[in-house]
Amino acid sequence: MKVAVMGYGTVGSGVVEVIESHSDVIPKRIGGNTLEVARILDLRDFPDDSHADLFTKDFNDILNDEEIKIVAETMGGVNPAFDFTMKLLKAGKSVVSSNKELVAQKGLELLRTAEENGVNYLFEASVGGGIPIIRPLTQCLAANNIEGIAGILNGTTNFILTMMIEKGMSFNEALRIAQEKGYAEKDPTADVEGHDACRKVCILASLAFGKHVYPSQVETEGITNITLEDVSYIASADGVIKLLGQIKYLSDDRIAAFVSPAVVYNGSQLASVKDVFNAILVRGDAVGDVCFYGPGAGKLPTASAVVADVMDCAKHTQRRKFFGWGAGAEDYVVDYKTNVKMPFYVRAKADCSEVTSKFSEVKFLSRKGQPSDEVAFITDVMTQKELEAKLGDMNVINTIKVTDY
Amino acid sequence: MKVAVMGYGTVGSGVVEVIESHSDVIPKRIGGNTLEVARILDLRDFPDDSHADLFTKDFNDILNDEEIKIVAETMGGVNPAFDFTMKLLKAGKSVVSSNKELVAQKGLELLRTAEENGVNYLFEASVGGGIPIIRPLTQCLAANNIEGIAGILNGTTNFILTMMIEKGMSFNEALRIAQEKGYAEKDPTADVEGHDACRKVCILASLAFGKHVYPSQVETEGITNITLEDVSYIASADGVIKLLGQIKYLSDDRIAAFVSPAVVYNGSQLASVKDVFNAILVRGDAVGDVCFYGPGAGKLPTASAVVADVMDCAKHTQRRKFFGWGAGAEDYVVDYKTNVKMPFYVRAKADCSEVTSKFSEVKFLSRKGQPSDEVAFITDVMTQKELEAKLGDMNVINTIKVTDY
Repeated sequence: MKVAVMGYGTVGSGVVEVIESHSDVIPKRIGGNTLEVARILDLRDFPDDSHADLFTKDFNDILNDEEIKIVAETMGGVNPAFDFTMKLLKAGKSVVSSNKELVAQKGLELLRTAEENGVNYLFEASVGGGIPIIRPLTQCLAANNIEGIAGILNGTTNFILTMMIEKGMSFNEALRIAQEKGYAEKDPTADVEGHDACRKVCILASLAFGKHVYPSQVETEGITNITLEDVSYIASADGVIKLLGQIKYLSDDRIAAFVSPAVVYNGSQLASVKDVFNAILVRGDAVGDVCFYGPGAGKLPTASAVVADVMDCAKHTQRRKFFGWGAGAEDYVVDYKTNVKMPFYVRAKADCSEVTSKFSEVKFLSRKGQPSDEVAFITDVMTQKELEAKLGDMNVINTIKVTDY
Repeated sequence: MKVAVMGYGTVGSGVVEVIESHSDVIPKRIGGNTLEVARILDLRDFPDDSHADLFTKDFNDILNDEEIKIVAETMGGVNPAFDFTMKLLKAGKSVVSSNKELVAQKGLELLRTAEENGVNYLFEASVGGGIPIIRPLTQCLAANNIEGIAGILNGTTNFILTMMIEKGMSFNEALRIAQEKGYAEKDPTADVEGHDACRKVCILASLAFGKHVYPSQVETEGITNITLEDVSYIASADGVIKLLGQIKYLSDDRIAAFVSPAVVYNGSQLASVKDVFNAILVRGDAVGDVCFYGPGAGKLPTASAVVADVMDCAKHTQRRKFFGWGAGAEDYVVDYKTNVKMPFYVRAKADCSEVTSKFSEVKFLSRKGQPSDEVAFITDVMTQKELEAKLGDMNVINTIKVTDY
């Protein structure tokens, strides 16, 4: 069975490698068929690559090849991946993708087009890299009402936070090392500002609750404001700071979804997720909490998820997979600031009496070298709006949500 | 769509509850069909149960009802579940099961019979209770060669070990509390001797490597020999004792599979799995380590996995799922004692010089109240056979495998 790969970067070259290095076992697992990479689309030249005869710069070479029935889209970005994918689906080819930006923005249209044309559009690799999450969420947990999801969805920021927590490095120092190791891009904005995690939240929310959630609906805060002082205070409360994507089901078929730094206490499965690893915790009304852990990025882990989707398409050429991913709605994603209650960590230039005059119940934290005019504390459960009202004119340095996962 | 439930114990009654309490969402997820529990088979009477009109003591009421296309088998035990399931499959009904003993013993025959009759036999709930593991392993990780699996597969023993580690309780005291809480049976043999974990190892090994592994092929050791002294020594090495099911792929298409207490160092995802929770770590050649965590037992968690299988059958009445679970073979599962190398924890009545005269490289451990004639240490990597040879006539109190997961 002929397969094309679009985008020969880290993941795309990994896809070719995984297909080739597993050519002995793949046929056994897909009913006897072999997978053959027949075309690779990339605008760049790869003169030293052993697949020289497979490269093309012309998308039509794939679109018009009737023998190619499955295409792996590992290009990234919305354009031209969206246009290409729509054309392929309309031409009766199944497409599998690791492209979280595209799925988050255009998942609904792509899934509808796949359905209309009797083909599959699969994207297991778009969330959590190599971690199985989309099938478990949509199939294994199908008998649950999902109450909430919390995930460490970005390896770069988790690496930076791990270095800050375990080695006492500053954010900038940790970012520099992440860049040296190839975990962070030269322009790290998409990672450190939470945009990458936001896209994954959109995909998880759309799958878990059946209505498309767009990145613009998910309030997103990165980790650039986190300091070693915050890390130290939170350690004294037996917790760590993680960048979490959180989704909560509220009443009346509405949800809240947001990305932000969050305090995770050390008993949580999310607290022990270190370095570039990811984890996604799903809370169902019947199952309780289940958690999926593994490499959230990287060449071969992500490629192995893409190839598993390719194998699924090869095994079930007739069958279309439906995810129950419907249209979004205006008031469906509500403002978490007025709708979700939680405790908050607060650090401020203030004294204890100012704090206790404003909050009836707080837990004060301490750190080594704490200045006499600085306080840090964890509040009772309230909305962010309520927190802001209570803080009033207090000289606040930082506030961080405390998660209940 | 009419469904029957066989066995109205904890899980079976949970299946009925989950189907009924999710009657609003289930149709949306299976293409519009509703699920209706039409019959419940149990030899006991449930006079106060609201489903009085559904109960039957006659299996033929289910077998001969042509409208019942899906049956949930939550009886447990090989007999009569095996006979019933075979008859149902041959009658063209799909069967889903939470019965690990049956799947471990008869999975091959049941899957073949399902295939021959164009129906499904699914058993997501048989390993890890509510934790998604069978679909992730067979579908999401399909592009990997699995190198090994290690799992905390039994909640009862994990609860007992957690009480020993965290509260300093003796094994007997912890067992008594587990019994009081309903986590352990009056006769706790199947749990504490590792038999329950052994069945799950068989199912995981059969799915991961494609050949049926039987319980008799898996050397199984329980936790009854673990003492607080061992717990204390291992804590000093920054580790914990867990009952692990382990499967390792060796060269030449052979595997080793065993259940035993094992030292897990605190960095591992398995170390933080406490109380009755389960976790399964899968090591793939492309993906690396992924880990699945959640409630390994319990009424609603396990039932939610059974109902997800029922929903899968309802969605795909025409499609048969193949797991690539083939026949076993004589020399396929080898003796781990001569084939798998690992470090070992050893506690003995001896002095250090006796140890260092026998082992070139060891790490000595200590504990509070350590008698002067007792030593504990962790060896270099070797097979158990090699360990036994080296120990010779040393007065050994206990040895425990050290895992590399």
